[in-house]
Amino acid sequence: MVGMDIGGTRLRAALVDRHGAVQDRREGATPAGDATGLVPALVALARELGPGLPVGIGIAGLVGRDGTVRYGPNIAVRDLPLARRSSAELDVPVVVVNDASAATVAEQRLGAACGHDDVVMLTLGTGVGGGIVADGRLVVGSGLAGELGHVVVEMDGRRCPCGARGCLEAYVAGPAIVARAREGLAAGRRSVLEAHADLRGEQVSAAAADGDPFASSVLDATGRWLAVAVVSLVNALDPTVVVLGGGAAAPLARWLVPPVEQALASSIIGAGWRTPPTVELAGLGDDAGLVGAALLAGDAARRLPAGAQALPSDDDQPGAHGHG
Amino acid sequence: MVGMDIGGTRLRAALVDRHGAVQDRREGATPAGDATGLVPALVALARELGPGLPVGIGIAGLVGRDGTVRYGPNIAVRDLPLARRSSAELDVPVVVVNDASAATVAEQRLGAACGHDDVVMLTLGTGVGGGIVADGRLVVGSGLAGELGHVVVEMDGRRCPCGARGCLEAYVAGPAIVARAREGLAAGRRSVLEAHADLRGEQVSAAAADGDPFASSVLDATGRWLAVAVVSLVNALDPTVVVLGGGAAAPLARWLVPPVEQALASSIIGAGWRTPPTVELAGLGDDAGLVGAALLAGDAARRLPAGAQALPSDDDQPGAHGHG
Repeated sequence: MVGMDIGGTRLRAALVDRHGAVQDRREGATPAGDATGLVPALVALARELGPGLPVGIGIAGLVGRDGTVRYGPNIAVRDLPLARRSSAELDVPVVVVNDASAATVAEQRLGAACGHDDVVMLTLGTGVGGGIVADGRLVVGSGLAGELGHVVVEMDGRRCPCGARGCLEAYVAGPAIVARAREGLAAGRRSVLEAHADLRGEQVSAAAADGDPFASSVLDATGRWLAVAVVSLVNALDPTVVVLGGGAAAPLARWLVPPVEQALASSIIGAGWRTPPTVELAGLGDDAGLVGAALLAGDAARRLPAGAQALPSDDDQPGAHGHG
Repeated sequence: MVGMDIGGTRLRAALVDRHGAVQDRREGATPAGDATGLVPALVALARELGPGLPVGIGIAGLVGRDGTVRYGPNIAVRDLPLARRSSAELDVPVVVVNDASAATVAEQRLGAACGHDDVVMLTLGTGVGGGIVADGRLVVGSGLAGELGHVVVEMDGRRCPCGARGCLEAYVAGPAIVARAREGLAAGRRSVLEAHADLRGEQVSAAAADGDPFASSVLDATGRWLAVAVVSLVNALDPTVVVLGGGAAAPLARWLVPPVEQALASSIIGAGWRTPPTVELAGLGDDAGLVGAALLAGDAARRLPAGAQALPSDDDQPGAHGHG
């Protein structure tokens, strides 16, 4: 299969075998502006890497069940039927899903959650995303499932980039951590961070690692907010593992993993007499999204009989579109 | 199939056809004390109603994936392998699941969520439970999925009967509504409720219906807390319908449904350009649990080849145990 990961700036593509191993790869800039350049760029990459092979695309955005990109915060597309258009050009099945959902599939089949049928994954970075696998299958809903950054951790809480209040993302995403640190400094908290005119997240974690009490308190709170959302998700979904991924998970692990583990041990339903889910850091790094998307494309191709004309409204797999 | 609903005081059983219609029913007291009396009572009812038919049991408690009742708040059993023991006695497949999960299955197949593949249901009463159907299948996790009363709506919030803090149940369950009303009265709020020495939930809703401002404020807050949890669940699971059931849903609907609908329209991811899930009151009443359990038993029986010896650790359906 061919797997792709469309980010705000980089477009990454790989030839992926059925075991999820990357055999070949290409990388380029995501075409700027509207969708005019995006479909041709994807089609050219797919033809170059694996002509005739099914294509899976993970994208940082909200994707409908039929593979239409409803909205991409960093990509100037809106209601783009990406699966249908790419499938028509390439004459292969094309699956389009949210990138964090794709990464969750890869971690569940090959990575940190390998061997688990019930998985919750959160991706932490500039935004907060996620994915849910229940009984071995990606939970898709009407397409937008897995938006775990928008689990509410405080009613009427901090304003989130999504427009709502109190979302997890408004507390634990990179910009939110910086904003909370700035507010503390503005309120007179003393810290080595006062020296930074243009504060960045890495400076907060570096200061905390050096023992700065204020920076540590900012990251400790980050872990506690994350734990609130994880407890909610575990009580709802009862996974056997919680995976933390995205660019910020590993650098912040020492502040995030202990409070999450502690909350799972003490605060989930049945705490005290049951084994809580384990907490793992994602294991596949930047390739998780494109590998997961490729695996989903392989699934879709196996479900479609050869030469089938998939009907978008009747598809029973996420974001898939059959031969055009 | 035979469906049963084991409550704290009543044990209800019915013969259910494959369309989910109740053909015959029995009702009795739940045997008090430990599990000694429970299994024989269930076995006798099953033999009377439908000898040789698969049995589905919904129970108000925490049930493992293999049909072991780990804990029942109102039933003095702990780690009772109810599916295995009943199946051994009856020589038929027996499925045991949480009663709210069973009710969710019934509402999805026959009731308020009929026609929807992705459903979130919350049951409101003395406690708060729930169930999740994703892509037509009940989400089970390792057995305890669907504990939606323990989605956290406030970090470090009110103490919940489960021992944790800030759970939805600690705000919107019947006893929590009464507790919040009592606290307001103790703090000097004026209300017709002052006249009630031993305040009950029905008195709060009656006073609110009569226009008492304080009682109305207590129930309005109930709706807002419920909305927080529903927004979290919709962002995580993206269902097309949210069902409110349990004994308190209909009486409190005028205070619960509008704030939930308003929050879905304004605060879920993509609000403004997408259609939010609808909010429906459960339609099957008290029979939902036993009908849903019976339908799950029918599913399990179809998956097991005739005469198969199901292995508890390999079962791929919730709480099922095959022929003993």
